[in-house]
Amino acid sequence: MSHQALWSGRFKEPLSAIALSFSSSIDLDKQLYQEDIAGSIAHVEMLSATRILTAAEGRRIRTALKVIQKEIETGKLKLGDEYEDVHLAIEQRLIQKVGAIGGKLHTGRSRNDQVALDERLYLRTAVKEIGKLLAQLQRVLLYKAEKHFGALMPGYTHLQRAQPIMVSHHLLAYISMLERDYDRLNDCLKRMNKSPLGAAALAGTSFPIDRHKVARKLHFDGIVENSIDAVSDRDYLIEFVSACSLIMMHLSRLAEEMVLWSSKEFGFVQISDAYTTGSSIMPQKKNPDMAELVRGKTGRVYGALVNLLTILKALPLAYNRDMQEDKMPMFDVVSTTRQCLFIVSHILIHTKFDRQRMEEELRNDFLTATEIADYLVRKGVPFRDAHAITGKIVSHCIDHRMYLGNLDIETLHTFSREFDPDIFDYMLPHKSVEQKQSAGSTSPNEVKKQIVHWTRVLKGRRAL
Amino acid sequence: MSHQALWSGRFKEPLSAIALSFSSSIDLDKQLYQEDIAGSIAHVEMLSATRILTAAEGRRIRTALKVIQKEIETGKLKLGDEYEDVHLAIEQRLIQKVGAIGGKLHTGRSRNDQVALDERLYLRTAVKEIGKLLAQLQRVLLYKAEKHFGALMPGYTHLQRAQPIMVSHHLLAYISMLERDYDRLNDCLKRMNKSPLGAAALAGTSFPIDRHKVARKLHFDGIVENSIDAVSDRDYLIEFVSACSLIMMHLSRLAEEMVLWSSKEFGFVQISDAYTTGSSIMPQKKNPDMAELVRGKTGRVYGALVNLLTILKALPLAYNRDMQEDKMPMFDVVSTTRQCLFIVSHILIHTKFDRQRMEEELRNDFLTATEIADYLVRKGVPFRDAHAITGKIVSHCIDHRMYLGNLDIETLHTFSREFDPDIFDYMLPHKSVEQKQSAGSTSPNEVKKQIVHWTRVLKGRRAL
Amino acid sequence: MSHQALWSGRFKEPLSAIALSFSSSIDLDKQLYQEDIAGSIAHVEMLSATRILTAAEGRRIRTALKVIQKEIETGKLKLGDEYEDVHLAIEQRLIQKVGAIGGKLHTGRSRNDQVALDERLYLRTAVKEIGKLLAQLQRVLLYKAEKHFGALMPGYTHLQRAQPIMVSHHLLAYISMLERDYDRLNDCLKRMNKSPLGAAALAGTSFPIDRHKVARKLHFDGIVENSIDAVSDRDYLIEFVSACSLIMMHLSRLAEEMVLWSSKEFGFVQISDAYTTGSSIMPQKKNPDMAELVRGKTGRVYGALVNLLTILKALPLAYNRDMQEDKMPMFDVVSTTRQCLFIVSHILIHTKFDRQRMEEELRNDFLTATEIADYLVRKGVPFRDAHAITGKIVSHCIDHRMYLGNLDIETLHTFSREFDPDIFDYMLPHKSVEQKQSAGSTSPNEVKKQIVHWTRVLKGRRAL
Amino acid sequence: MSHQALWSGRFKEPLSAIALSFSSSIDLDKQLYQEDIAGSIAHVEMLSATRILTAAEGRRIRTALKVIQKEIETGKLKLGDEYEDVHLAIEQRLIQKVGAIGGKLHTGRSRNDQVALDERLYLRTAVKEIGKLLAQLQRVLLYKAEKHFGALMPGYTHLQRAQPIMVSHHLLAYISMLERDYDRLNDCLKRMNKSPLGAAALAGTSFPIDRHKVARKLHFDGIVENSIDAVSDRDYLIEFVSACSLIMMHLSRLAEEMVLWSSKEFGFVQISDAYTTGSSIMPQKKNPDMAELVRGKTGRVYGALVNLLTILKALPLAYNRDMQEDKMPMFDVVSTTRQCLFIVSHILIHTKFDRQRMEEELRNDFLTATEIADYLVRKGVPFRDAHAITGKIVSHCIDHRMYLGNLDIETLHTFSREFDPDIFDYMLPHKSVEQKQSAGSTSPNEVKKQIVHWTRVLKGRRAL
Repeated sequence: MSHQALWSGRFKEPLSAIALSFSSSIDLDKQLYQEDIAGSIAHVEMLSATRILTAAEGRRIRTALKVIQKEIETGKLKLGDEYEDVHLAIEQRLIQKVGAIGGKLHTGRSRNDQVALDERLYLRTAVKEIGKLLAQLQRVLLYKAEKHFGALMPGYTHLQRAQPIMVSHHLLAYISMLERDYDRLNDCLKRMNKSPLGAAALAGTSFPIDRHKVARKLHFDGIVENSIDAVSDRDYLIEFVSACSLIMMHLSRLAEEMVLWSSKEFGFVQISDAYTTGSSIMPQKKNPDMAELVRGKTGRVYGALVNLLTILKALPLAYNRDMQEDKMPMFDVVSTTRQCLFIVSHILIHTKFDRQRMEEELRNDFLTATEIADYLVRKGVPFRDAHAITGKIVSHCIDHRMYLGNLDIETLHTFSREFDPDIFDYMLPHKSVEQKQSAGSTSPNEVKKQIVHWTRVLKGRRAL
Repeated sequence: MSHQALWSGRFKEPLSAIALSFSSSIDLDKQLYQEDIAGSIAHVEMLSATRILTAAEGRRIRTALKVIQKEIETGKLKLGDEYEDVHLAIEQRLIQKVGAIGGKLHTGRSRNDQVALDERLYLRTAVKEIGKLLAQLQRVLLYKAEKHFGALMPGYTHLQRAQPIMVSHHLLAYISMLERDYDRLNDCLKRMNKSPLGAAALAGTSFPIDRHKVARKLHFDGIVENSIDAVSDRDYLIEFVSACSLIMMHLSRLAEEMVLWSSKEFGFVQISDAYTTGSSIMPQKKNPDMAELVRGKTGRVYGALVNLLTILKALPLAYNRDMQEDKMPMFDVVSTTRQCLFIVSHILIHTKFDRQRMEEELRNDFLTATEIADYLVRKGVPFRDAHAITGKIVSHCIDHRMYLGNLDIETLHTFSREFDPDIFDYMLPHKSVEQKQSAGSTSPNEVKKQIVHWTRVLKGRRAL
Repeated sequence: MSHQALWSGRFKEPLSAIALSFSSSIDLDKQLYQEDIAGSIAHVEMLSATRILTAAEGRRIRTALKVIQKEIETGKLKLGDEYEDVHLAIEQRLIQKVGAIGGKLHTGRSRNDQVALDERLYLRTAVKEIGKLLAQLQRVLLYKAEKHFGALMPGYTHLQRAQPIMVSHHLLAYISMLERDYDRLNDCLKRMNKSPLGAAALAGTSFPIDRHKVARKLHFDGIVENSIDAVSDRDYLIEFVSACSLIMMHLSRLAEEMVLWSSKEFGFVQISDAYTTGSSIMPQKKNPDMAELVRGKTGRVYGALVNLLTILKALPLAYNRDMQEDKMPMFDVVSTTRQCLFIVSHILIHTKFDRQRMEEELRNDFLTATEIADYLVRKGVPFRDAHAITGKIVSHCIDHRMYLGNLDIETLHTFSREFDPDIFDYMLPHKSVEQKQSAGSTSPNEVKKQIVHWTRVLKGRRAL
Repeated sequence: MSHQALWSGRFKEPLSAIALSFSSSIDLDKQLYQEDIAGSIAHVEMLSATRILTAAEGRRIRTALKVIQKEIETGKLKLGDEYEDVHLAIEQRLIQKVGAIGGKLHTGRSRNDQVALDERLYLRTAVKEIGKLLAQLQRVLLYKAEKHFGALMPGYTHLQRAQPIMVSHHLLAYISMLERDYDRLNDCLKRMNKSPLGAAALAGTSFPIDRHKVARKLHFDGIVENSIDAVSDRDYLIEFVSACSLIMMHLSRLAEEMVLWSSKEFGFVQISDAYTTGSSIMPQKKNPDMAELVRGKTGRVYGALVNLLTILKALPLAYNRDMQEDKMPMFDVVSTTRQCLFIVSHILIHTKFDRQRMEEELRNDFLTATEIADYLVRKGVPFRDAHAITGKIVSHCIDHRMYLGNLDIETLHTFSREFDPDIFDYMLPHKSVEQKQSAGSTSPNEVKKQIVHWTRVLKGRRAL
């Protein structure tokens, strides 16, 4: 049974059951009950402080709101489909409890600013939690990078083996990527952490409310100044979802590598049984499902971004009901991003790197060809010529089913007289890595520097 | 507590609780229990018919499956998070009930083909229901078109008034749009209505199963021939969601017009109180929320399309766990599209067109300027010149704050000597409409033809 | 210098240079000059036939239009930025050439129906060309499938080795996928191949034009009946781009496999030097760039789909200038899809499968574990138990660093007494494949059937 | 004719013409020639400074590069399809000019870090230009807000009239929106303005290059530390395109309002003839095409965002050729966003607000109903009851075809005894606006404060 709507004064017919069921958002927005009540309490405190309500009225309403929060938490108050949304449900319950005085809660505000407030409070928490999960994953990556310091693997471009790299160096690349994610969330938070409350419907209110006081009570950094903007704006949400899309993109790359590396063909890692699953039909299978799901869930967050951008496109100011549709993507993105960051940390912890296999793969191959070219350059050959000569050497090896390690100095001399016997040193994967001199390169020194840097940064990291 | 996984033979450690909770899809895919059981029953019947199982085994399994269906429907069997998915939950329950023999159900099939089967069965039903809802909305539009036959309104391009049109003509445009949607779903169904069952994991099976028999039992038009394709393919879902994106795009245009037309500025329609809502703060407000929500929900379906396309991008064959992520968008698109078609039908039924207002708006304006140009053309003036002359007349009127109706013949002669007094007839909105001669135009004759056509088509329409 | 706009009668100020440059679409839509002229010629023929123009007028305009086409093709007429669009440019040139009579061309039509006509003509050709390219790629796949008939490779799920499959079977899966693409384009063509001409601005026209005659002249299957729909509709384009998104999704999967297979780790194929590129720095690199680009270009087509869906969202009827923005994605999708289909055919032709390597990989592994389970099932063990037993065997092998081929019968008996020495036969990859019995499976018989089927289908294929 | 590729040492066959034409990016990336040459010059200077090249070599190369830049600018050097990309084209030309020594330019770098460098330089400029255009548009809005200070208009929610607001207040809302855009670009710039050069292929280089020196020469704030990250990363571009998507979303809302407001029905503004266009068929039309195109181009930027996110999804590290596909969306988003900001400024300048019309519309309506409710609240009636009473009054008016202004005190008393004759004051739109007391509200005081604030901010604004 539908309650009579609180806004029904001018209406002759009640909202049809079909329309109520179509338009009710309570199924989703009941997740905001804490934020809604916290916002209402702050609003009431301000109404009392500014004498719009008496101190006694304020107390009664606040007390009742706290009781309602308990009722929701204990399941005594069910937030069911007979309500339009969580905001009206709570207000209705308040009036039931304290009578007409409850009707004073909504003085000087509107659902338009109220819902924007609740979302900002909710997302502010989500940003902080995701910030922590990012740091947690960075720490896992750092732990692995330290643990495998010294281990080498093939570095890839175009999924073709390119040059030997340190395993740690590769893992550190992800720490850098996640650090940008962390920064972006921090930047997003600056714009998000402003209070829209008091914008009322769109024009502000004739009651002498104190918007800044409410903002301070709720730990905002300030208010969204322009009241029309305050109720029309969903930038804070879209910016947040954009940032999460990049997080998921990064995780999808890591997940792809977990899938590749745990394949029979690569064999670089073993994911623990506890984080893989079997096949309903093929008894030998051990599948990297968690990584695959993370990769797949990327689509979910991208889709949410498109959803929100589509909703807002070409909406005239100020609030339009289309904006209620922001709830599903908002909750889904928060939960998906959190889950994925969490599971990737766990997969990684439970993954073993097969150092022996990776180093074997480095030996019989051409990954140090660039070192040969650079060797020639140091002897004065222009890089382009050195590159061409080395290309010919590689081609020669392929024709003769050899690797670089099988060449002798006589053969090398047929390509260039510049080669001396020390060239063979340069062909060793470990040498190749140690040779690197540039900042941020894969040389042990540089990788060590990065490890030290991130250890320091992550130690100091507090939640956002 | 987690059940031991049916695939756990080779594993030393159970799936971690974290991983199970992350990867379980039962929360969503339990909606497929009917399809899953129907598919299993057909599979078992075939296994008996081909003597892979004995008749007695087949009977016992089938009976138990029917009991399980009841258990689910009565809530006796809870499909909770401790299961990986609905398929394993039902199989596990079967084995509980009938013992080891239950383990024979999965002979010659895999979850890979099973889930594709369930989805196709589910979507086949959804396509038919959406087809019916499309026809229902078309019938509402047709009813309104017949009811308002004769009424005129301004036709728009660029949201600027263009030419007088019949209200019916405008409504009929939507019937045409929805008819293409219906056709597209029908075309989609051809490709969807093929059975993947028996493809097993990806390679088919060494049991002498009869895939065609299962397909016939489940009313498919045939089988998905290539077994690798059968388990890798989600085209049927993406094509369906593409078709729904166009449906939603069409509804968003209609919703936009409902919002515009019910504004104070246009005032062309009145939506019933039962399909509008009020404001929590502004007592006079009556908002077209249902139309706004339909417009907003367009983003949801677009987002689902992007989600699915992203998931499938660059996945190697055959099945990958990423594909499990197709559930959320699948269920959401089916439910959103159904709800929106349903509510738009209801909004329209409960909407009154203000014929008087629309016709008033036609009178004092320039909507028949094209008729003046065409009049001159019929007198031999090339169209481009006629257009220019008429443009000057309009400009003259604006300068003198007049409308076409206020012009006299003398003034017209200053622009062209070709004007005779019959020109004034051509300026009347009704005349403009009646003048139209081309097929599909806004003339009463042509609009009547369309009404007759659609009456016949929609009468004959059976569900897909 | 800007020409005076043909529509400028009522305007006091010319379009600013800034606005012209912002809004001109000629840079893109000049690609439609052929369609535009063909449409105009058909329109003029009809105008003469219906005596709206005299025969002489019709002849003069038609002749001049043909000359203009030549002028464009020879570069004599430059379609530069001083024109708003290709339609006005051609009309303006016509008036220059034949004088005021040229102004009669636009009788009974509008740019709104004209541009929809041009697009439908353009896309109709594109659909046919893409249809041919699909068939061409299918033929290449079929050629390769025939050539490698008999060769085996590991089949994958979750990128983990699943079961031995025939290389041909895998390639045939793509033929099936592309066949659905072909069908979808054909279905799209049904709705696309209708003439919108004669809808005029939106309401039809008072001239006694014959829309069906124009449609027949231009080889359409009929007309878009409702004139408002005719100028508001872009479904034909969005449906086409949806179909191309699926094509690109399919190509992205094939491209991904080319990248994987040509990696050192897989080593299943060698792409010809002529279709790979090197590195500017690493002399040994040979990168599968063409496949990577195809994979990357998927984003381009997905993006175009989102672009178009966004443009149309919530546009009121009828034509709005936003719709001009459909040109860029239209041309880009046609060109991208064509190029990618073309290049993938060429890459494939120039790719060698390393049959020896693939078969070696099959031997020392567990890909036939399902056969062992099925073997036990045939001895009466329920599938679930058989699966569990086989899982234990696999686990035993891993612990002892063995593969299935290294097991002896005594060891097998410790897992189940049902094993007889013939079990070893079932473990051979070739046997596994030959054992398959189900329709569409990887058995030589079934694969042969598919080859025969596609040979027949593709032989008969004519362009759409 | 194709030049021999600079990387062709190991290849036996040249790149096929088909593959070159498919993969060449020069058609687009030639736009980067300035950035490419600037980057090369800084690289060479560093190579000399670190003695990897001699001072003489460095000079010769730098001089030649400057000549090449001139050659490109004067059209002497055509960057045609026979080159793979702009980077190789310039290097090839360099070698032509200075001989083998030119081959030393590429010492210690790769195209992978080079292209990332060029993009960052290009986007850095674009960010600054877009920042200026944002500020320009803000200034235009501010100018209009000042000019129309005092003018009132109906404020809307749900496109239903809500409350009277100041025109300036509405325009200021857009300034706030654009300010967030400006902030986001600034934040994006922090992450973008780092030099990737010296990362080489992915692992760094064994030459003793000085990455920081190059970074300083090119005015970067630092280097992208991790060399693998440096060549794998496109975050800077995606973050930029996300920010532009929000800019376009904001512009689409303003454009929508321009379309609505310039409709006959609203009639709030007149866009200048110079920024509107006519119809090819309807002589009276004056269409807000520029606003419509801005609205439509939103899809273009959203599409580019999806394109890029799709490209990067699940790409393993480090560089993959898919990433070359970032060029088209990058250039298109920069150009589209710039153009749209520019044209919106111009449209706005050339738009007249019809103050009289807007104020007339305020008079006969119910926009001050909230004031009545608030009036009652101040008399002690709880807000919910006051809202209900006012709703009844509105309903009464509608039944009697009256507006609030037509009510008398007796009638009001039938709804509540709390009304005194001063109530009529509160119903005046001007009074309603002046009554507002909350921060950021539509009261003249508050709006004035915002104008002062923005005047100060925008005066101080330098380019980013």
